[in-house]
Amino acid sequence: MIQIFITGGTFDKSYNYINGELFFEKTHLPEMLKRSRCQLDLKIETLMMIDSLEMNDLHFEKIISKCKNCNTNKIIITHGTDRMVETAKAIAQAELKNKTIILTGAMIPYAFGSSSDGFFNLGSALSVVQTLKKGVYINMHGQTFNGDKVEKDIKNGIFKSIN
Amino acid sequence: MIQIFITGGTFDKSYNYINGELFFEKTHLPEMLKRSRCQLDLKIETLMMIDSLEMNDLHFEKIISKCKNCNTNKIIITHGTDRMVETAKAIAQAELKNKTIILTGAMIPYAFGSSSDGFFNLGSALSVVQTLKKGVYINMHGQTFNGDKVEKDIKNGIFKSIN
Amino acid sequence: MIQIFITGGTFDKSYNYINGELFFEKTHLPEMLKRSRCQLDLKIETLMMIDSLEMNDLHFEKIISKCKNCNTNKIIITHGTDRMVETAKAIAQAELKNKTIILTGAMIPYAFGSSSDGFFNLGSALSVVQTLKKGVYINMHGQTFNGDKVEKDIKNGIFKSIN
Amino acid sequence: MIQIFITGGTFDKSYNYINGELFFEKTHLPEMLKRSRCQLDLKIETLMMIDSLEMNDLHFEKIISKCKNCNTNKIIITHGTDRMVETAKAIAQAELKNKTIILTGAMIPYAFGSSSDGFFNLGSALSVVQTLKKGVYINMHGQTFNGDKVEKDIKNGIFKSIN
Repeated sequence: MIQIFITGGTFDKSYNYINGELFFEKTHLPEMLKRSRCQLDLKIETLMMIDSLEMNDLHFEKIISKCKNCNTNKIIITHGTDRMVETAKAIAQAELKNKTIILTGAMIPYAFGSSSDGFFNLGSALSVVQTLKKGVYINMHGQTFNGDKVEKDIKNGIFKSIN
Repeated sequence: MIQIFITGGTFDKSYNYINGELFFEKTHLPEMLKRSRCQLDLKIETLMMIDSLEMNDLHFEKIISKCKNCNTNKIIITHGTDRMVETAKAIAQAELKNKTIILTGAMIPYAFGSSSDGFFNLGSALSVVQTLKKGVYINMHGQTFNGDKVEKDIKNGIFKSIN
Repeated sequence: MIQIFITGGTFDKSYNYINGELFFEKTHLPEMLKRSRCQLDLKIETLMMIDSLEMNDLHFEKIISKCKNCNTNKIIITHGTDRMVETAKAIAQAELKNKTIILTGAMIPYAFGSSSDGFFNLGSALSVVQTLKKGVYINMHGQTFNGDKVEKDIKNGIFKSIN
Repeated sequence: MIQIFITGGTFDKSYNYINGELFFEKTHLPEMLKRSRCQLDLKIETLMMIDSLEMNDLHFEKIISKCKNCNTNKIIITHGTDRMVETAKAIAQAELKNKTIILTGAMIPYAFGSSSDGFFNLGSALSVVQTLKKGVYINMHGQTFNGDKVEKDIKNGIFKSIN
């Protein structure tokens, strides 16, 4: 069984046509999973629906606590990209042994159609969480990074390995 | 480096608005890779652009020969779903030791927009080809199947493990 | 009030991912109208869901009869493009005085996403049915043709005026 | 011949995946016209690419001057919805006799795919500019409003007739 925790981020943002701003209307995960024809045994829980720039210590603690206490060792977390690295590090420091935890997200909201990377990243995270060793990882644009050896290249909107 | 071999299949089909039939206009892979922001070192080659129902022994031989002779041990093959299992078995029998070969595809053409599973499957295959042991696999809808222990459930349009 | 009659055609075709063929699963009209935020007083009725190449005299008679007997003088008919001209002529010959009747459709199914012309044509037909004089028209790709002075340019997939 | 003036607005906004904000990258009009298979004789000019909330007197003057001096009497202006009514009134007051001028736009950017109303509105405006009498109009969601008898219902994101 694979646990998916939803925390918000660009991945799940929608466009509010009344005020022209981005907001969280609902998670797109069920729709995405149906579209993918995924037959995996999944458990989905929304922990929060926020931009990761708004995450504080309480949010980090909640995510870590949920990872620790869920009864599976394969976990995917959908997350805003701006602080994905920070959350990955916080989880890594919590030393949740025996768990494979993957953070993923999107640079363009799934709701924005044919430009979004979210659906690709979800497929990627779902497949790779089943094969990776225990540890905390970021999986974006087809690459898997160790959670403590990755940074976001803000200028180019991609993730990179660091030593 | 990852080698991607394109063979056609539903994954790359387009709609011909003149005669209302599906056909192969071009591969959508470059567009999909750009959209995904993929930074991986990829080599892409189109071996054929056909419906897998039209594949004959010569096509199988070409695919196997290309897998054998390419200078990388990580290979993804985009392929029609109808005979994906057959091709996987043919490659498995060729005993290309030291190669991780993943076949993937789509149930709905990428060109058909927000209903297609192709982009999810591409992300999935790209990430998992980097982590799987040597062998021949089918990766569809977030699942990885051993190439010699899988069948297509034609009625439901999904793949299933067999013993 | 505007009456919309649905007859099928490419406009409403869907892709059957089990057998790879196009078929009529449902009309996309309600979804399209919602997306357009259309506030017009509309009445929608599905007369048939077929490829216009399959239309026979009974189908033509049904369409004409429905146009004649509906209690509004503004009518839009969604229709396959292959025999749209023929149906327009048949309706024109029925001399339904006092009615503005517009046939429209699509060269690419609405269900195929960002390549389809259907949504554009629907907006076009809805606006123009409110301004045109009595008569039978074909409205495609932003142009309005008199129903008895139009042909389909099959080679290029567009409609053209004839004398 | 139909003149299309582009002024920006939600219609043409794109998503900047680096900073998560909406911006004007390019106009989507050529892409939309190609998709629609439009064969009309069109002349397209970008006057500005701004949110209509940022329009000042100089912008209004430029739009009016361009409408006055272009050598056709059929004009479409793509425009932000927030001040579409204001611009329509300003043009109406300029008393450009012998011109049919239609303002249109979108509540959701065309770039956001299958949720956008922009493509529907473009088809609508293109067809109706060919049939309406001289005057200034707003055409949105399949309805044509007299430019001096319309307001935006900000709460619901639609336009309404007023007396």
